[in-house]
Amino acid sequence: MNLQSFPSKLLEKAVNQFASLPGIGRKTALRLVLHLLNQSQDDVEKFGNSIIELKKNVKHCKHCNNISDTDICEICSDKSRNTKTVCVVENIKDVMSIENTQQYFGVYHVLGGLISPMDGIGPSNLSINMLEEKVKNGDIDEIIFALSATMEGDTTNFYIYKRLKNYPLTINTIARGVSIGDELEYIDEITLGRSIVNRMPFEGQI
Amino acid sequence: MNLQSFPSKLLEKAVNQFASLPGIGRKTALRLVLHLLNQSQDDVEKFGNSIIELKKNVKHCKHCNNISDTDICEICSDKSRNTKTVCVVENIKDVMSIENTQQYFGVYHVLGGLISPMDGIGPSNLSINMLEEKVKNGDIDEIIFALSATMEGDTTNFYIYKRLKNYPLTINTIARGVSIGDELEYIDEITLGRSIVNRMPFEGQI
Repeated sequence: MNLQSFPSKLLEKAVNQFASLPGIGRKTALRLVLHLLNQSQDDVEKFGNSIIELKKNVKHCKHCNNISDTDICEICSDKSRNTKTVCVVENIKDVMSIENTQQYFGVYHVLGGLISPMDGIGPSNLSINMLEEKVKNGDIDEIIFALSATMEGDTTNFYIYKRLKNYPLTINTIARGVSIGDELEYIDEITLGRSIVNRMPFEGQI
Repeated sequence: MNLQSFPSKLLEKAVNQFASLPGIGRKTALRLVLHLLNQSQDDVEKFGNSIIELKKNVKHCKHCNNISDTDICEICSDKSRNTKTVCVVENIKDVMSIENTQQYFGVYHVLGGLISPMDGIGPSNLSINMLEEKVKNGDIDEIIFALSATMEGDTTNFYIYKRLKNYPLTINTIARGVSIGDELEYIDEITLGRSIVNRMPFEGQI
């Protein structure tokens, strides 16, 4: 099915909007729009307004730059958390991933991206100044980098490290090594090599 | 990534709306919502309003029941088309598929579904009365069934045939047989058997 001849301009407009989303082609877009068209007027308005309301009213937490409904997000305003330990992540999805491990009791700093000259993203597009400000004010004892193990992640790690290394604080990164469940023969050489160099004391359990 | 702990109720609401679409899971929904959140306020409003406007203003053609911006759709109001030949299809996607063949010069009748007792869709949920009305008024000389070759399609074909067979008109169905490009050894027996029973004169080309 070729999609040039839409019987309705309104339909074509809606399909074009959906097809602009990442990973949604024009056939899928048409399927989604026709599905919505079969819903009640009320449900369709709820759908359309949910995204408009989100864009209009969503805030970024003034402490950690995470998406939030309030000026200070739930994590930063949680009194039981250690606000002196800050985990630096790329985006909100990473915050959710780490929260779901239930192993971390500090707070976060959301960069909003990674340094990537190919995509035109430099340090000034990220919330690095905001992080340095917190370090300057002595709000932070330990920083933990939790960025992707990619070229962009490593570049960003290194750039922030250089900016912050002269302040009195500990700078750590999450452990790299063999994933739990991996079989040795299938692990790439770089990961395996690093895991030997960075060997750690065995304490009777993992 | 488990998706229970959203940092924002507004975000959660938007993700739930997207995840209600067919074929969109919660991870994909989050990805789409975060993509939209990175667009300008204007673009997000355009997106949300495109679907609300469509639902509010879209019409169904009074002749053929197809989706249209006007009371009578472009195809039905095209003077060069033969309005006495009516192709019966399930939905608007099938109209677009047949239009794209550029081989059909009659008009359409869109049923809006197929008879499917399992899904609670009976003849009264489809625009069959509207079709019979046109036949009664003598508006139609020939009907061409172009429904899917499934149980539901065949049931619908047969039901409409029984309703209309006593009126003075020709009732045809699109040809079933071996698809162009198919190799004989891979064709199912029913299709191959039918294509032998319904053999047609060879006229030097397909």
